[in-house]
Amino acid sequence: MLHPDRLFPADAATRRIARRLYDVIRDAPIVSPHGHTDPVWWGENPAFPDPAALFVIPDHYVTRMLVSQGVTFDALGIGSDADPRAVWRVFAQHYHLFLGTPSRMWLDHAFNDLFGLTETLSPETADAQFDTISAALADPAFRPRALYDRFNIEVITTTDSPLDDLAHHRAVAASDWTGRVLPTYRPDPVADPEFEGFHANIRALGDLTDTDTGTWQGYLDAHRIRRAFFNANGATATDHGHPTAQTADLPASVASKLFADILAGAGDAELFRAQMLTEFARMSVDDGLVMQLHPGSRRNHHSGIHATIGRDRGFDIPGTTDYVSALQPLLNAVGMDPRFRMILFTLDETTYARELAPLAGAYPSLLLGPPWWFHDSFEGIRRFRQTTTETAGFWNTAGFNDDTRALCSIPARHDVARRCDCAFLADLVTTHRLSEESATELAPLLANGLARRAYNLETEA
Amino acid sequence: MLHPDRLFPADAATRRIARRLYDVIRDAPIVSPHGHTDPVWWGENPAFPDPAALFVIPDHYVTRMLVSQGVTFDALGIGSDADPRAVWRVFAQHYHLFLGTPSRMWLDHAFNDLFGLTETLSPETADAQFDTISAALADPAFRPRALYDRFNIEVITTTDSPLDDLAHHRAVAASDWTGRVLPTYRPDPVADPEFEGFHANIRALGDLTDTDTGTWQGYLDAHRIRRAFFNANGATATDHGHPTAQTADLPASVASKLFADILAGAGDAELFRAQMLTEFARMSVDDGLVMQLHPGSRRNHHSGIHATIGRDRGFDIPGTTDYVSALQPLLNAVGMDPRFRMILFTLDETTYARELAPLAGAYPSLLLGPPWWFHDSFEGIRRFRQTTTETAGFWNTAGFNDDTRALCSIPARHDVARRCDCAFLADLVTTHRLSEESATELAPLLANGLARRAYNLETEA
Amino acid sequence: MLHPDRLFPADAATRRIARRLYDVIRDAPIVSPHGHTDPVWWGENPAFPDPAALFVIPDHYVTRMLVSQGVTFDALGIGSDADPRAVWRVFAQHYHLFLGTPSRMWLDHAFNDLFGLTETLSPETADAQFDTISAALADPAFRPRALYDRFNIEVITTTDSPLDDLAHHRAVAASDWTGRVLPTYRPDPVADPEFEGFHANIRALGDLTDTDTGTWQGYLDAHRIRRAFFNANGATATDHGHPTAQTADLPASVASKLFADILAGAGDAELFRAQMLTEFARMSVDDGLVMQLHPGSRRNHHSGIHATIGRDRGFDIPGTTDYVSALQPLLNAVGMDPRFRMILFTLDETTYARELAPLAGAYPSLLLGPPWWFHDSFEGIRRFRQTTTETAGFWNTAGFNDDTRALCSIPARHDVARRCDCAFLADLVTTHRLSEESATELAPLLANGLARRAYNLETEA
Repeated sequence: MLHPDRLFPADAATRRIARRLYDVIRDAPIVSPHGHTDPVWWGENPAFPDPAALFVIPDHYVTRMLVSQGVTFDALGIGSDADPRAVWRVFAQHYHLFLGTPSRMWLDHAFNDLFGLTETLSPETADAQFDTISAALADPAFRPRALYDRFNIEVITTTDSPLDDLAHHRAVAASDWTGRVLPTYRPDPVADPEFEGFHANIRALGDLTDTDTGTWQGYLDAHRIRRAFFNANGATATDHGHPTAQTADLPASVASKLFADILAGAGDAELFRAQMLTEFARMSVDDGLVMQLHPGSRRNHHSGIHATIGRDRGFDIPGTTDYVSALQPLLNAVGMDPRFRMILFTLDETTYARELAPLAGAYPSLLLGPPWWFHDSFEGIRRFRQTTTETAGFWNTAGFNDDTRALCSIPARHDVARRCDCAFLADLVTTHRLSEESATELAPLLANGLARRAYNLETEA
Repeated sequence: MLHPDRLFPADAATRRIARRLYDVIRDAPIVSPHGHTDPVWWGENPAFPDPAALFVIPDHYVTRMLVSQGVTFDALGIGSDADPRAVWRVFAQHYHLFLGTPSRMWLDHAFNDLFGLTETLSPETADAQFDTISAALADPAFRPRALYDRFNIEVITTTDSPLDDLAHHRAVAASDWTGRVLPTYRPDPVADPEFEGFHANIRALGDLTDTDTGTWQGYLDAHRIRRAFFNANGATATDHGHPTAQTADLPASVASKLFADILAGAGDAELFRAQMLTEFARMSVDDGLVMQLHPGSRRNHHSGIHATIGRDRGFDIPGTTDYVSALQPLLNAVGMDPRFRMILFTLDETTYARELAPLAGAYPSLLLGPPWWFHDSFEGIRRFRQTTTETAGFWNTAGFNDDTRALCSIPARHDVARRCDCAFLADLVTTHRLSEESATELAPLLANGLARRAYNLETEA
Repeated sequence: MLHPDRLFPADAATRRIARRLYDVIRDAPIVSPHGHTDPVWWGENPAFPDPAALFVIPDHYVTRMLVSQGVTFDALGIGSDADPRAVWRVFAQHYHLFLGTPSRMWLDHAFNDLFGLTETLSPETADAQFDTISAALADPAFRPRALYDRFNIEVITTTDSPLDDLAHHRAVAASDWTGRVLPTYRPDPVADPEFEGFHANIRALGDLTDTDTGTWQGYLDAHRIRRAFFNANGATATDHGHPTAQTADLPASVASKLFADILAGAGDAELFRAQMLTEFARMSVDDGLVMQLHPGSRRNHHSGIHATIGRDRGFDIPGTTDYVSALQPLLNAVGMDPRFRMILFTLDETTYARELAPLAGAYPSLLLGPPWWFHDSFEGIRRFRQTTTETAGFWNTAGFNDDTRALCSIPARHDVARRCDCAFLADLVTTHRLSEESATELAPLLANGLARRAYNLETEA
């Protein structure tokens, strides 16, 4: 089910090189500096309820594909109740839809490696496999903390609202479990005027920090206070999920006026988000938190699905994303500051060679994040390396991160990325663009070294 | 001249897999659900006049390349009279220009497979080959219906104006010839205010349907009536050749006012086309015709050529095309309706991974059409599969279609697509992203199964 | 250090074909029809001062990468004085940053082939290699004219302001050295209102040509006079470095008014540049100079770097570039004129398949320039061939040019391009898209034949 040579180049000599490189890193610890696992898992270490709840219902990669071929959300128990076994059978019945996709690769990896399944999921095997996984989930060895250890994770980060009290992170720190689970400061709920509940969130931020978030300075101070709190609880990074990469660097009085307009329900939301990116960049200069920018998704494309089923159900569609003009105000402000670091992600692959690699290959503050979301795949990783390496090299990239809420997929995702990087390096070696000696030094950097370096995770916080 | 392993991967082991997959589908019947062959051919079954009229003069793929290197339209007998043999000699003299292009591959295929030519076309061979092809064309075995049978075509569709009486389609249906030739409803002449003769066409549509196309409701009814007529004559699809993918969903009163403005020679043509796409989508929900969208060509780029030589002469140049925002109004209206189906094409390959695969991988109504026009080629098909499969899988694609008016190229075009798909599948197998068993099941789907399914051609109409 | 099979395909059979093709062209003379070498080198033939001044300080490919990883401009002696050996040590210390980049390939080629170095540059080898190169530079065999002869250059062009007196080109012509060094007319300083010193340049242009450049007709005449002067001194081409490809074809009175506004410090600079492209195109129809368009770079992205360190320091970042709409006014004016030729370059690779290949594959006046700047690389050249050949063929391309101010990189750049083209052709042969006989005829065309043809360099001027 999992071929030892999977994802390695077809050419036999190149494949042998890829194997040798992979042997160096196959067992390297997982550094996961950006993801969406639930802090409850780490703080409370609960059992996962059932196979459908673990593999199907919460995974928008999986549900969108099923829906795209006519499965209803109802049949998946989304927006309604459904018997987990019935959901699992629907999943099994449509498992062929995933042929050729990374989801299939991650799922097969987890089924085989974690649960010992050796047959392909299908209507015939569905029930037995449901039972096997269900039985395993009742075993303490399949609880989150045990999986963390089993997966050889060195550090994992979550993504958290400024309003979060980080209780689960503190519970982990106070426990005798040795896992390292760090928060990430994601201020969208209190920085994006179009976020649901924005105004209430602003007030809550004021209460939490004892500042007057009705004023521009109070609002900025509140962020500084929460960032310090996150920092004290191990955070090394912030994350920003804007629709575009637009930044602005308005005079303080204009920014202050804009904030007042926004609070009054007027004001240009896009301009406010743009200004906030530059404000957050200045805060990063001061407090050292690494800034991550994840722009370009047009969220909730179908209004009816959004209204009835909610967010994150596969109806977030990428669009064209400009970086070169959009980032100019921020980069002119702090882009050459040696204390600043920003990691750029994209859903618009046309920007890899055209904008992102040239930017990261010039500005000392910029690093390129790994292929994101739809592009975290064999072909996606190959395109990323092929279109960025010649201009930005390897050291201007931030290594791999899994960006997932699907805990069981984490080993598979890192394994796929490592195999793809070894395949890419092996191709450079075969075509004499790189010595095998250099490739052997680069492989561990790509596996986790660059991620540790990019996110300041080299030593315990 | 035609190597049996052409287009298969270089790696020997992968090539063997590709060969095995191709063996399964090499003789599968051709399903051609979108094309531009002349209905006269099927209705009247005339002989083709001469080699230049068959292979050179009507083929804008061929003439644009000759013109791009200094051949004049005059020398090609376009916009003027020219001796067919003289045109053929000009073609032969410049045949090297096509090296490395799909046109060359299709032409060589037809020359060799259909006319038995074994030497490359050149100034030296031009006259003899002209004579050989001319002699064959006088043979009834080279008339359209005989070629249809010889090419093992199962079904072919044409592209027709709502004003067409479908006489040739009816003649085919009434004949004892077993060929299946179906019309496609292409309403651009009566739905695009910038189409030549739009206003007269609107009046003709009213006359034809006995409706008042001077009113919005009458105009929509006229479309419904003609769609029913097409449907009754075997049509399963509509086709829309807009400059952009823009859609709109205006309130009925606003749409009605816009139509009145358009009729008065005012009104926003782009907005009217946008609204009409959503209207046609609603009609598709009702009558089951599959909707095809072919946007993105900037037609008639050189005004002088357009004025003197006319349309479709190689001066249609693609431009950037947005789908994610453009389609949102239509998809919010009917995109989740299980009765609706739309097949999306593009000339802007950047949208494959960024917009089209995520859209088709979420909306149950959407399928991806095959690589279109400039991209119906070895590299084009490879890029399509590499950039769409990981997000949309195989089942969200609509199989291959040839989109051609060049009858003799049809077997070559389908053969190229089949070989390219086998090469792609073989690469997945070699890199252990797919089992050979699964690839063997997928190959016939890609060859014609998905096309039958997408266009509702699985049973006789 | 330089493997004889570098850049050839991994597959053994394909590699053998690539080797055979490369053997045909490896020693073909270098035709360099577009570049930025300093005319002083050719006119005065000075010694190069030291390794840092030759390989590091003036090369923005090199300095941007060092800066991107925290090296300061100060440490590189840019904007300040620095000891050449100290700069060289910084370079050596960071040489690993270039792994996988074309700069590394070009540098290693020059170090090995020109200076006989056999060890990789590193902190350990830095001093000895500095000494070896320094010693060589004192030898007359390493002066520019000797390098020209050694590199087997047939012709090289420089890029020159209309205000330049071409004294160095005339000195070469008057000398007994047989090198052929031709100027190129680059009017940006007197045609782009945003160029530094524009207004003074316009006045200088008037003085130089004895025309009244305060009037539209006088200004156009001044260009004609300087073009004739360049032509008389061997120029065969012009070059235009606009931010976009926008063209315009205004009525003469409107253009005249626009010019007056521009001189008055008002007027739309973008529109003026657009109009000037069409004016230059008309001049090309008359005087036969081949027009080159290099659009799409957003220059001087960081204003602080621009203010303190100046232009051309690696902070020029590409952006999206439209051709299909932008070029329409110019092409409608002269695009079908058999006397006109324009070579198009791009930094936005998305336009290769979508816009540039269709345009060049239709208009007789258009040719595609080779992959430019960031894209002059193994992957860049492969993408160029893969995305343009099927639509534009080979004859609508302009061959290779090196576009460099780094003299020692010229043989390496041409060698890389030749190897990449042989690899591409070999892949076509292996997959039976091209016969090896045809590939063997194409290889010399791609190496220098198409460049001679595109730039009218086939005979001595």
